[in-house]
Amino acid sequence: MLYLIGLGLGDAADITVKGLQAVKSCSRVYLEAYTSILTVGKEALEEYYGKQLILADRDLVEQGADEILKDADVTDVAFLVVGDPFGATTHSDLVLRAVNAGIQFKVIHNASIMNAVGCCGLQLYNFGETVSVVFWTETWRPESFYDKICKNRAAGLHTLCLLDIKVKEQTIENMMRGKKIYEPPRFMTVSQAADQLIQIINRKRDEGEELGLTEDTVCVGVARLGSEDQMIRTGTLRQLVSCDLGPPLHSLVITGQLHPLEVDLLRINAEPNALQHLCMLDSSTFTS
Amino acid sequence: MLYLIGLGLGDAADITVKGLQAVKSCSRVYLEAYTSILTVGKEALEEYYGKQLILADRDLVEQGADEILKDADVTDVAFLVVGDPFGATTHSDLVLRAVNAGIQFKVIHNASIMNAVGCCGLQLYNFGETVSVVFWTETWRPESFYDKICKNRAAGLHTLCLLDIKVKEQTIENMMRGKKIYEPPRFMTVSQAADQLIQIINRKRDEGEELGLTEDTVCVGVARLGSEDQMIRTGTLRQLVSCDLGPPLHSLVITGQLHPLEVDLLRINAEPNALQHLCMLDSSTFTS
Repeated sequence: MLYLIGLGLGDAADITVKGLQAVKSCSRVYLEAYTSILTVGKEALEEYYGKQLILADRDLVEQGADEILKDADVTDVAFLVVGDPFGATTHSDLVLRAVNAGIQFKVIHNASIMNAVGCCGLQLYNFGETVSVVFWTETWRPESFYDKICKNRAAGLHTLCLLDIKVKEQTIENMMRGKKIYEPPRFMTVSQAADQLIQIINRKRDEGEELGLTEDTVCVGVARLGSEDQMIRTGTLRQLVSCDLGPPLHSLVITGQLHPLEVDLLRINAEPNALQHLCMLDSSTFTS
Repeated sequence: MLYLIGLGLGDAADITVKGLQAVKSCSRVYLEAYTSILTVGKEALEEYYGKQLILADRDLVEQGADEILKDADVTDVAFLVVGDPFGATTHSDLVLRAVNAGIQFKVIHNASIMNAVGCCGLQLYNFGETVSVVFWTETWRPESFYDKICKNRAAGLHTLCLLDIKVKEQTIENMMRGKKIYEPPRFMTVSQAADQLIQIINRKRDEGEELGLTEDTVCVGVARLGSEDQMIRTGTLRQLVSCDLGPPLHSLVITGQLHPLEVDLLRINAEPNALQHLCMLDSSTFTS
């Protein structure tokens, strides 16, 4: 049996009781280590589970799936994923390979950013399509996420922006030389994402294009959701550029049309200088 | 402290380790019992947790919030919610009341249908706005969910349809007589939801309106997601009308544009007669 087990979002104790029982019963336990992270590392999980974990990087999952699935028809193998197992396409591929190899699989679900983001105060059923914001490079500055945010906003919907993660990245130089030297991991912050969005707004304004959001759009930055030291900050996009929410992971929500109950909930985590703006919303937003 | 604890989707063992620890430490534990259900009842949970649970129906949560929050500034109170605590607006209201009363709160997240539905094979970031399908009555046949589904489909997005739950409902007669006699709980099935959708399609076709989906649109019915006997069935909307997915809860997904990997995954749970249709999709869908 292949168990795909969600670890939730915070630390080792966020696994479900059912998930923990499965981990303890498996002969091999892989920890997926490139689409997300917990606030604790491999060693803390190993101690908590009482099990050795095998780190599964992108190469192993995408090219070494046979290794992960080896003997899973006669023994139990666990594949641990931060959040819920179906948060990333890669894991669907592993399921397909198992099915094609005649290996049974079982999913043990858990919270992921896709549903836990509801705790910021915005109703989940008022969210539109989720987008990914990627790190820009000097030569590659995609803006497709901006267009999707605008489309959601035009329909009155909020947008969850998943922020880029770079782990085990090589420089082009090292890659060309075949040197397996990896850069330190990078996790996009709310501040960086807000900055990229404002750069798009500025470009569009300069070129006379229509704006679907502005520096004054109310947004919510969340960091380490579900952990003891989680941070949720509500402010305008401009305000979030200068906010420091600490260590990863960060996510950003761009609001659409706000319901009065949502505004009340946003207030709980609004910074003093953001409150004023939210108060202004009270009288104007609900009539539009 | 007020703990809002998600129970996940299956049975008693789907609570997180952190959640179980919190339950055991609380002096009063409420179980929210009207927006969703597990595959096990209150007694099974009480035995598993080693705690008495207080059933919290809609009246208690919406009008008796003071009772729930009583002394929560000096003692620990838990409020258990099937799925994740922020799945329903009602629970946001409880958080607001706690904050206004100066009571600290902590959320312990878990899987909900909003993210666990990814296991049907459709990618979560290809979902648009979630809709609710309500039981029609003789005099009330709302169609707004249909329009939202069409809007999602026009944007290429899938739609998660949450299906109606009626618990502790009174007949109009009993309500007028002030008799607190409640009807048996009702949970909308995938078959019933598909039937209502087809009735809307037929009406629109008769009246010459444009159709955003048809009886041949590929849909996925899911039942008791996350439990040992969960069922996932992929078929056309017409096929799902006659499928029996067993006891509650059910949810329905209407597909938008399908990615090849999604089609491969849908195949795993497709009924023999639905496979043919999915095969047809291969050659036509991805060019549109």
